[in-house]
Amino acid sequence: MARITIADIARRAGVSTGAVSYALNDRPGVSDETRARILGVAAELGWVPSQAARALSGARVETVGLVLARAPETLGFESFYMQFIAGIEQVLAERSYGLLLQVVPDIEAEVQAHRRWHAARRVDGVIVVDPRKDDPRLAALAGRDALPAVVVGDPEFAGDLPAVFTDDAAALRECVRYLAGLGHRKIGRVSGTEGFGHTTIRDLAFEGEVAREGVVGRVARADFTPDSGAAATRCLLEADDPVTAVIYDNDVMAFAGLGVAHELGLRVPEDVSLVAWDDSPLCQAAFPQLTALSHDVTSYGAHVARRLFERMAGAEARAYRDSTPTLTVRGSTGPPATAR
Amino acid sequence: MARITIADIARRAGVSTGAVSYALNDRPGVSDETRARILGVAAELGWVPSQAARALSGARVETVGLVLARAPETLGFESFYMQFIAGIEQVLAERSYGLLLQVVPDIEAEVQAHRRWHAARRVDGVIVVDPRKDDPRLAALAGRDALPAVVVGDPEFAGDLPAVFTDDAAALRECVRYLAGLGHRKIGRVSGTEGFGHTTIRDLAFEGEVAREGVVGRVARADFTPDSGAAATRCLLEADDPVTAVIYDNDVMAFAGLGVAHELGLRVPEDVSLVAWDDSPLCQAAFPQLTALSHDVTSYGAHVARRLFERMAGAEARAYRDSTPTLTVRGSTGPPATAR
Repeated sequence: MARITIADIARRAGVSTGAVSYALNDRPGVSDETRARILGVAAELGWVPSQAARALSGARVETVGLVLARAPETLGFESFYMQFIAGIEQVLAERSYGLLLQVVPDIEAEVQAHRRWHAARRVDGVIVVDPRKDDPRLAALAGRDALPAVVVGDPEFAGDLPAVFTDDAAALRECVRYLAGLGHRKIGRVSGTEGFGHTTIRDLAFEGEVAREGVVGRVARADFTPDSGAAATRCLLEADDPVTAVIYDNDVMAFAGLGVAHELGLRVPEDVSLVAWDDSPLCQAAFPQLTALSHDVTSYGAHVARRLFERMAGAEARAYRDSTPTLTVRGSTGPPATAR
Repeated sequence: MARITIADIARRAGVSTGAVSYALNDRPGVSDETRARILGVAAELGWVPSQAARALSGARVETVGLVLARAPETLGFESFYMQFIAGIEQVLAERSYGLLLQVVPDIEAEVQAHRRWHAARRVDGVIVVDPRKDDPRLAALAGRDALPAVVVGDPEFAGDLPAVFTDDAAALRECVRYLAGLGHRKIGRVSGTEGFGHTTIRDLAFEGEVAREGVVGRVARADFTPDSGAAATRCLLEADDPVTAVIYDNDVMAFAGLGVAHELGLRVPEDVSLVAWDDSPLCQAAFPQLTALSHDVTSYGAHVARRLFERMAGAEARAYRDSTPTLTVRGSTGPPATAR
């Protein structure tokens, strides 16, 4: 499959490469007749404008960038990112855009990647995930000449950039009320990575809602990986005064927690109720099936991509609320045995 | 963050943009003194050569492409692709390359994407996954002027392209021998998508090995999704003469199968033994933990990326065997109750 060049068209049409360039760029400098002949030859040869040439002329490079600042090996644990990317791809595919994906160790490296991509015109815009307090990425993406960007997270952590977010606080409050309503008096929470904006927001919502319900709330820190989720679950369940319900910040930690409960000889949900965040097909494959805060992550990714296209077209920075995760009750939650 | 252009450098250095171009491209046309001044100014401004300009000059665009021909929503089910991509990214990151990822509905659309990328110089090479018999992608990637490519799969399905593969037949044979050795006389297999090269290879290995061991082998077709895995498991376990062990073509189908076994009131492994393919952290989170054909998918992705760089540098097409998946025995397999 050879690439068709301007030289190929020039040769076939019997004109100079300059004439081909004028014709293809719809600029004066060739007669209408010659232009028509050149366009005919170009069409016949299946010519596609070079991305590089269009970038030089200031046009789009038809690529959107996503940097993930994580240890590469942690990516495979969560279905979240692949679902999210699948959603982005749905929208990009409609426009024949590609997604340029790079995994880097930390957000400082992410800032460098954005800078490099922008300088070298490799992307038309970027998606920023897991925003945190005083996020250095936002400063680097501020200003009139900056790369267009959309933040995936609460507007509180998005600076002056557009943000697409879910109301995690509302979702977590609903979950705490549900568990308290079942009779749970000691509720645990296995959190995601400390420092992430959404972890802070969920922490505050949890703290506020357990106080409002007059129940005990305990938080064990983890980092979204199964191992950390298992360790945090042990902490909560092997305490002298263990919790009878646990809410997790993602699905794989809830899975790992289910394994720990089985290992400790605890029945689910009689001895301990478990709730996952980000429902996934695996939540339904578990036994018992996992109650989850369901969110359509693929639609979320698609929503973010649409907002980025709007931003690249010059839209003002705004905050867009995506649908709030809702509680899907399955077999892993019920009244605590002690209250029965 | 503004992009530094040749015009900015020219202005600051007090020279023409042509002079800047000569200097930056290391071509004659400016004095050594002027060249030094221009390079100094460029360094001071933090200039990075434009990707577009380098592409036009025939240099690399420092991007590798991967098209996934699947329904986007199925991507989130399997940790395989995210782990595989994480491995690719490890190698790309060392070279500051990006991965251009596009999800398309079928391999005909994949051929179009390759063609478009090549014509528009958006990638330096591509990775082709899930090769099948008479794969139209191979023809489109054949020839001297074609986009450099590496096939992830058995050389039998890779045409004249380099291939990186695992010896799935050996892995499956080991697994059948292990189960037969435990006393299983009726072994099931829940397969991946029909038509994929590796499905065919595993089918043949399974058929051959059950015959050699003198046991009954039954295949139920699925497509890597949890729902299909659950349905196939029901087929195998609800038959009049059910199997006592099931080997799955990935991890999420094995998970779904575990859920079905629980649902049917079957004990694992006493009533039915289960084996997953592509070990993942989730296999260890399950209860009982899943015996699996373990393969380091992240390393596999890294291996593929390294071979693609070699190919882009002009290496001959060869077949490279990656490590063979090995059986990791955990709690989901044991002797069948009837043989105890």
